[in-house]
Amino acid sequence: MAMDAAAEVDHLAAERAAARFDVEEMKVAWAGSRHAVDVADRMARLVASDPVFRKDNRTMLSRKDLFKDTLRKAAHAWRRIVELRLTEEEANLLRLYVDQPGYVDLHWGMFVPAIKGQGTEEQQQKWLPLAYKFQIIGCYAQTELGHGSNVQGLETTATFDPKTDEFVIHSPTLTSSKWWPGGLGKASTHAVVYARLITEGKDYGIHGFIVQLRSLVDHSPLPGVTLGDIGGKFGSGAYNSMDNGVLQFDHVRIPRDQMLMRLSQVTREGKYVHSDVPKQLLYGTMVFVRQSIVADASKALSRAVCIAVRYSAIRKQFGSQDGGPETQVLNYKTQQSRLFPLLASAYAFRFVGDWLNWLYTDVTQKLEAKDFSTLQEAHACTAGLKAVTTSVTADAIEECRKLCGGHGYLNSSGLPELFAVYVPACTYEGDNVVLLLQVARILMKTVSQLASGKQPVGTMAYMGKVQYLMQCKCAVNTAEDWLNPVAIQEAFEARALRMVVNCAQNVSQASSQEEGFYERSPDLLEAAVAHIQLIIVTKFIEKVQQDIPGDGVKEQLQNLCNVYALYILHKHLGDFLATGCITPKQGALANEQVRPNAVALVDAFNHTDHYLGSVLGRYDGNVYPALYEEAWKDPLNETVVPEGYHEYLRPLLKQQLKLSSRL
Amino acid sequence: MAMDAAAEVDHLAAERAAARFDVEEMKVAWAGSRHAVDVADRMARLVASDPVFRKDNRTMLSRKDLFKDTLRKAAHAWRRIVELRLTEEEANLLRLYVDQPGYVDLHWGMFVPAIKGQGTEEQQQKWLPLAYKFQIIGCYAQTELGHGSNVQGLETTATFDPKTDEFVIHSPTLTSSKWWPGGLGKASTHAVVYARLITEGKDYGIHGFIVQLRSLVDHSPLPGVTLGDIGGKFGSGAYNSMDNGVLQFDHVRIPRDQMLMRLSQVTREGKYVHSDVPKQLLYGTMVFVRQSIVADASKALSRAVCIAVRYSAIRKQFGSQDGGPETQVLNYKTQQSRLFPLLASAYAFRFVGDWLNWLYTDVTQKLEAKDFSTLQEAHACTAGLKAVTTSVTADAIEECRKLCGGHGYLNSSGLPELFAVYVPACTYEGDNVVLLLQVARILMKTVSQLASGKQPVGTMAYMGKVQYLMQCKCAVNTAEDWLNPVAIQEAFEARALRMVVNCAQNVSQASSQEEGFYERSPDLLEAAVAHIQLIIVTKFIEKVQQDIPGDGVKEQLQNLCNVYALYILHKHLGDFLATGCITPKQGALANEQVRPNAVALVDAFNHTDHYLGSVLGRYDGNVYPALYEEAWKDPLNETVVPEGYHEYLRPLLKQQLKLSSRL
Repeated sequence: MAMDAAAEVDHLAAERAAARFDVEEMKVAWAGSRHAVDVADRMARLVASDPVFRKDNRTMLSRKDLFKDTLRKAAHAWRRIVELRLTEEEANLLRLYVDQPGYVDLHWGMFVPAIKGQGTEEQQQKWLPLAYKFQIIGCYAQTELGHGSNVQGLETTATFDPKTDEFVIHSPTLTSSKWWPGGLGKASTHAVVYARLITEGKDYGIHGFIVQLRSLVDHSPLPGVTLGDIGGKFGSGAYNSMDNGVLQFDHVRIPRDQMLMRLSQVTREGKYVHSDVPKQLLYGTMVFVRQSIVADASKALSRAVCIAVRYSAIRKQFGSQDGGPETQVLNYKTQQSRLFPLLASAYAFRFVGDWLNWLYTDVTQKLEAKDFSTLQEAHACTAGLKAVTTSVTADAIEECRKLCGGHGYLNSSGLPELFAVYVPACTYEGDNVVLLLQVARILMKTVSQLASGKQPVGTMAYMGKVQYLMQCKCAVNTAEDWLNPVAIQEAFEARALRMVVNCAQNVSQASSQEEGFYERSPDLLEAAVAHIQLIIVTKFIEKVQQDIPGDGVKEQLQNLCNVYALYILHKHLGDFLATGCITPKQGALANEQVRPNAVALVDAFNHTDHYLGSVLGRYDGNVYPALYEEAWKDPLNETVVPEGYHEYLRPLLKQQLKLSSRL
Repeated sequence: MAMDAAAEVDHLAAERAAARFDVEEMKVAWAGSRHAVDVADRMARLVASDPVFRKDNRTMLSRKDLFKDTLRKAAHAWRRIVELRLTEEEANLLRLYVDQPGYVDLHWGMFVPAIKGQGTEEQQQKWLPLAYKFQIIGCYAQTELGHGSNVQGLETTATFDPKTDEFVIHSPTLTSSKWWPGGLGKASTHAVVYARLITEGKDYGIHGFIVQLRSLVDHSPLPGVTLGDIGGKFGSGAYNSMDNGVLQFDHVRIPRDQMLMRLSQVTREGKYVHSDVPKQLLYGTMVFVRQSIVADASKALSRAVCIAVRYSAIRKQFGSQDGGPETQVLNYKTQQSRLFPLLASAYAFRFVGDWLNWLYTDVTQKLEAKDFSTLQEAHACTAGLKAVTTSVTADAIEECRKLCGGHGYLNSSGLPELFAVYVPACTYEGDNVVLLLQVARILMKTVSQLASGKQPVGTMAYMGKVQYLMQCKCAVNTAEDWLNPVAIQEAFEARALRMVVNCAQNVSQASSQEEGFYERSPDLLEAAVAHIQLIIVTKFIEKVQQDIPGDGVKEQLQNLCNVYALYILHKHLGDFLATGCITPKQGALANEQVRPNAVALVDAFNHTDHYLGSVLGRYDGNVYPALYEEAWKDPLNETVVPEGYHEYLRPLLKQQLKLSSRL
């Protein structure tokens, strides 16, 4: 049970009693296994019960206090991890539940993997133990003030000096300042810095270098290194706990062996040589990072949906002409038609994330066997899923906030902070538009190769059925026919393929392939989205065709799968009209199955009140007294008469405002 | 020229030189008249040049300092208004450019109009002079903790006590606490309080009462009055400058004559009587408030679009395979296809807002003549336009932020604050979903009366052409045919009417009208939106059919009108497919006309850098040095080694974290 100990009355008990499935088994389906439920539960409680990890005051702290609080939490988390001898799985979950962006995210999530992926055996042996024990703190310094998605445009230089056997790291312009890296501004002692490698007068493009930034004695920046925080970001609390930083180098020298040399080296003489390690190996890391972003999307969405569903069951409005109680907002069709597809999306993203996890293992094994045949398809699939799930989740969190009405605008609802902290996911690790255009490029290539008989693989295999899909007619006659997964999947396949083929034809009419791609890029984006939505629907359908234990659990998931598919069908009706049409009746049909189970479906996410961080989404539904109590904690309420009354209100009210002397 | 004096180089000069229209004349078309341009310009500069009105530090202030800063600005603004003997038009503009939500907004925007609209002549003579001179500060206390859109559900009571000739104002429950009113928490001395009027044991429903809340001597709450701020809200800076408040009454007594008695009275004996003033008069105020919200939507959208267009012309990315300069982001079709429709929407909302202003005058004149025949249509139109323009604007600001890439996430971009301060417009003065359902109800009624020969009026007149519109076939054959306003308008009319008629048929099949309306409410929402989009397109078309002076100005507006219409057509393609189809070619066609004029089109909004408040949207385009400079102002940068280093980073790095004693 996720209910806090202090809560006495469950205001949502009637909702929970009405649910038609086994919530405990749904928790297992959501988390992936009984073990996963248990360990997450244990870590969530550990965090929630520790006063150092309180976060209810986060939006009220000044930037400096918030940052200091983040340092404190990171140190305390590390202490607990060491003391309790937590496993890596447990430690990761503990950090997840601390739920406050900070330098450790980049240290573990980017610095360590970069050294693992791009460092030689020797480099790994030197640097990883230091990082594992936090004797150094590292970050990942890639983007610059004037350069984001286009890594090849970076301006920072690393010029080899054969006289001293060193690289000279330098920022030649203002726009070459490193800008955005998390943990860089205040916390990190080291960074993996990406710079143009120049040796023997030649520019060999972007490479990674391990650079020490701060003294390990007193944390002051080393000579030639300028460091700072880039300033406040969207929201209060939220991502402001992170010290995203700016960094400039003035001819900073590092030993040659701090270039990450797994893929290529510079010799003592200054020769640039490639190693025999295929560079495709780097894709493994990218697939890993992106699958974890998709997993994070389902987590963030599940929190927003949990808050909105519970509060919609508590909030009552209208419907009391006869003086009776008002209607629960959750009973309104307008609320259901906006909220339930988001609930279904949370489950859809969860399952496609699980599948991506499998894909990562598969890609890793193939890479180790030097089989690169599925790499492109895997890249398209992870890039596209990253783009679609993060964009949808960002919009959906804001939609959940709106679905909570006015109170969703209060920080105590948790939703403003959840939104503000989540939206950068649309930009980092590949801007979503840039990623979808990459997907589109691969789709164009795949379609052009169909003629030569090359069979597409994996998530693109359906494109091999091009002749059938280009002319198939949808057999759906009644609303109920749409509940057949075969019909749904075929409709999604036909829509995606027709959009892709249509784009390919238009692109081929242009004066050049590149010109055509440029002209048609808005349509290409839409085709890429259609392809990715097909993948999500397909993986959801595959999931619900498996054995899933627990009373009613499988039925609920089947219904959510229909809600999701019909929602996309309705939203993109224009795309689908070639294949048939859906009636509003169906959407309503599926939603009716969700209504009695809505609260239990979000309970199955198993979020503690601490992790949710929302007065509106409390497990016990005791919303109004909690809102009232929260309000009084605002610093403005420290005094009854506000500061500024004597200077600015009283003179106004007493008509004693001093006019300027010149009048 | 909106450029700040300090700027020396115009980094956007080439963009401005390439524009194909007269920007000065476009400023007139945007503002409405030469006079409007001039007076706005004068007030904007007055505010921008006054150090008291600085706002670049707003997101870094603590809640208390931000609130105090708001009090200071309000007092200073009032002083300047008095000193300079500003007209009402000038004073309103000055407050607009101060651009910081505060108690004065509610004082002038809600408290004074409520007394004007609902007070008797006598009450107006007593209270308005006090309010006009700021001898009292008033707010508007309607919503409660448990009650928002449903005014009839309010719980606060005002019970008449004939013994003392007083009303007893009381909050019987926690959920009856007044909650949200702006200016209530800390600043207001008085409020118009909405409460259930009870006299002679009978509940007469919701009425307004003028209630003093705070002592005019020392600002402390009066006996029986509990007052506080409801806590932090979305974003930093943003709406946190406002003291949205909570208020509870414990049997607070007020004289009988503080009930607002224009429409109904309670006599000395406690009899409830209606006056002969028709209650429809109250609609005038509602139309006025909503037309100003539509005008505000175009202002907010114009700011976001201005920032995104200018920055997209400065930002360069990719496209430099040959080592040449990268491509301006504004040249990418994917950027254009997302950004230009929003630019066109800003103009569309501006012109429909102008028209609503005319409608308000028209409604007022008709009300004075006791002609209520167009009231329902005017209500549907203003409610619907409020809902559509605010929802679109909120989403569009966030889209503009995303279009600015990573840097849009920084507070110095101005976009996070613009979004956070704007979104409540979707909820206040009528939740958008509730309003659209009201529109839908009127549409259903209008369609049902067609059979009886009742001709719809005003913006619903097109529904009279039902027989033609239900079967007309769209004559568009080529992409260019869509640029004909007649074709566009007919397509929008046919789509809206068919959706409305389709809903009406489905509703009529239900067991009852009410049940049908409830079941079909998601479709009804979509039909209402289609009707409102038709109004926006129609008013834009009407605008560009007028004489508009200035080289190329009319042509630009015609093109923006096409961009807007084609964008809606593309976005709601599913709705339109019954009437024809559009090709991507057209969207591209229209966008091509916008590209060379994009920067000049946002210059025509005439926003000062102070009002825009965005480093990315600077008039001179000198973005990167400004971003760099802003970063160093963050409080985190006050020290090179951050606070917390000695407690939380050094012990970690030195492996000296003290473990708990129990280990």
